[in-house]
Amino acid sequence: MNILTSEIISTLTNIVNSQEFVPLHTPIFKGNEIKYVTDCIKSNFVSSVGEYTKKFEAQLSEYLGAKRVVLTVNGTSALHVCLMLSGVEANDEVLMPALTFVATANAVAYIGATPHFVDVDDASLGVDSIKLSKYLSAITVIKNGECFNKDTGKRIKAIVPMHTFGHMSDMDAINAVAGEYFIDVIEDAAESLGSLYKGKQSGTLSKLAALSFNGNKIITAGGGGAIVTNDDNLADKAVHITTTAKKPHKWEYHHDMVGYNYRMPAINAALALAQLENLDEFLLKKRALAIRYKEAFAKVAGVKLFMEPEFSQSNYWLNALILDEGNEQLRDEVLEHTNNNLIMTRPVWDLLDTLNMYKDSPKMDLTVSRSLAKRIINIPSSAWVGS
Amino acid sequence: MNILTSEIISTLTNIVNSQEFVPLHTPIFKGNEIKYVTDCIKSNFVSSVGEYTKKFEAQLSEYLGAKRVVLTVNGTSALHVCLMLSGVEANDEVLMPALTFVATANAVAYIGATPHFVDVDDASLGVDSIKLSKYLSAITVIKNGECFNKDTGKRIKAIVPMHTFGHMSDMDAINAVAGEYFIDVIEDAAESLGSLYKGKQSGTLSKLAALSFNGNKIITAGGGGAIVTNDDNLADKAVHITTTAKKPHKWEYHHDMVGYNYRMPAINAALALAQLENLDEFLLKKRALAIRYKEAFAKVAGVKLFMEPEFSQSNYWLNALILDEGNEQLRDEVLEHTNNNLIMTRPVWDLLDTLNMYKDSPKMDLTVSRSLAKRIINIPSSAWVGS
Repeated sequence: MNILTSEIISTLTNIVNSQEFVPLHTPIFKGNEIKYVTDCIKSNFVSSVGEYTKKFEAQLSEYLGAKRVVLTVNGTSALHVCLMLSGVEANDEVLMPALTFVATANAVAYIGATPHFVDVDDASLGVDSIKLSKYLSAITVIKNGECFNKDTGKRIKAIVPMHTFGHMSDMDAINAVAGEYFIDVIEDAAESLGSLYKGKQSGTLSKLAALSFNGNKIITAGGGGAIVTNDDNLADKAVHITTTAKKPHKWEYHHDMVGYNYRMPAINAALALAQLENLDEFLLKKRALAIRYKEAFAKVAGVKLFMEPEFSQSNYWLNALILDEGNEQLRDEVLEHTNNNLIMTRPVWDLLDTLNMYKDSPKMDLTVSRSLAKRIINIPSSAWVGS
Repeated sequence: MNILTSEIISTLTNIVNSQEFVPLHTPIFKGNEIKYVTDCIKSNFVSSVGEYTKKFEAQLSEYLGAKRVVLTVNGTSALHVCLMLSGVEANDEVLMPALTFVATANAVAYIGATPHFVDVDDASLGVDSIKLSKYLSAITVIKNGECFNKDTGKRIKAIVPMHTFGHMSDMDAINAVAGEYFIDVIEDAAESLGSLYKGKQSGTLSKLAALSFNGNKIITAGGGGAIVTNDDNLADKAVHITTTAKKPHKWEYHHDMVGYNYRMPAINAALALAQLENLDEFLLKKRALAIRYKEAFAKVAGVKLFMEPEFSQSNYWLNALILDEGNEQLRDEVLEHTNNNLIMTRPVWDLLDTLNMYKDSPKMDLTVSRSLAKRIINIPSSAWVGS
């Protein structure tokens, strides 16, 4: 085994400090989870019309400092609805990093629109706004206040910056570039609940944002997501679209558009509400773990723990080691050895432009994404790790 | 107030026998619901990879006598996946009754296909197979083993019979007609869990079926659905499509098609598993309630309780009064008075061809559906009503 591989493994083993299997990320249920879920069942209202759906929406709004939260069955559905609310239509293009989970692109595909991949910078792992600006200047034309791709002739309607592993993209810079090109911004904040950008909560930095409460996230609803916005009109539309577009009436069933069955059931909201009560504690523990990783790996030449960009405070959802350039070939050795020895690790997602269904999508030069994709190793990051 | 209206209201009031609000349908949690959900939370696996998702799938397969069950986030998503598995593509047409909940048509619209509405018969409230056969003979042509609509030029790929209020459609007759025209059959069994057709369980009478466990159904998962099939290959594909189409690998993220985040979380499955254990008791209670309604309304001239078609045994999910022809004008009077006096009642859904987004969809003559739509009143049907 390579010496660096061996150092990485021993450093990691020391910190996770466990004789048992250590997963990448699992939740902690130590608060009111059983109490609230039991109360929800006893109330008889376990579906999306139950009170816990409203309660969690109110608490989350307050936590984020956002006017409205609309809960959904998962993060993908939240993003799908955000795109619809933003006016994305079939045959539009939607910009997004190639370095993101596949759901970001799938939500665009559901509408019949096309993901258009952009590169990330290695300071944030998010959309590189400088490269974006140069690219848009070269490939787009503005007509009647809308941005069109000169190559494909298609409208570029929105951009979806994704906060990778919980680390914030540089939203001010991205918003500025997007604004210049009449492109809507939708935050994919699936991984970044609790992260701050210049003191503001992730999910509140654009017109619309999507959150996720999947089982692997910093807090979980079992499965769930949320649409976040300060615009009451958009929030009301989100409620309408996610509840089969039924018009309010005491007994009539009238639906005025193709709607979706996307609302989070109360039993899931009850679980998530209890989780939210402990979010600040999870954030502290995860930050402490990240610092321990950082300090330990500072002594290992050839690899670094990725730390929050200077303009932000990360939730450190999923810690990432990044091998120095030239050490790419060690990645699979580390993955193989750790996964065979009770420590779960993973590479980053396959870049989306390499997947069969998105291989013909438009894209800019993706040099930084391709380099990072070969060098990232996610390591165990649950709030309880090493404690 | 009309004398018949008054008789209907007093008959209904006598049976529901309550000083408090009586909803249309609510669940009963009297078994292992809290126990299983608590156990699920304690196991730490609340998302779709948890054991309870597998357990409920196994128990439901056994109950139905079906080879495979794949759980989903709701009935709409189950139907969406069934349509995809059946090979329905954009620009196809899919036959379905105009008298169904809007989700049946929405699932077709998600694929970019078009709902094509057919009439129901008043013996089953489901697809009229005789009328269907005559209609298809007139409007279709078969080319290379596929059925095409001569008017629109579009392929008719599938038919989705829906078992209205839990009453079975005449599946043998529908399957026979569909088979003759090379049209796939997908049961929309969202409302009919536990109903039998010639002794066989609803959901097992075609290649693929969709179930629902929404909060208003005979058993609930908070929110949830299921794909039912005897075909292992289709079931495996259903798992793949509903889990973001990720190819199995120890650590890689490779997705080979546009997938969905559609799997039921374990916490919802835990609730539904406990519910399933009491399904047979719910069925008995709901049948007893239906018989009491039937006998009471037998004494009221001008209205009847809809009873199960002779080839079937209904779960009596939602009881329906049907006003005799000529009494249509009383429907809204009954609805108004009951809903203002603690007894929840509802008309049937607006016929789907009357909704704005489906008004240009192809359709046959819908005389029976239109007549029924004016005369149906759903009445309180929870298993606990009147007890």
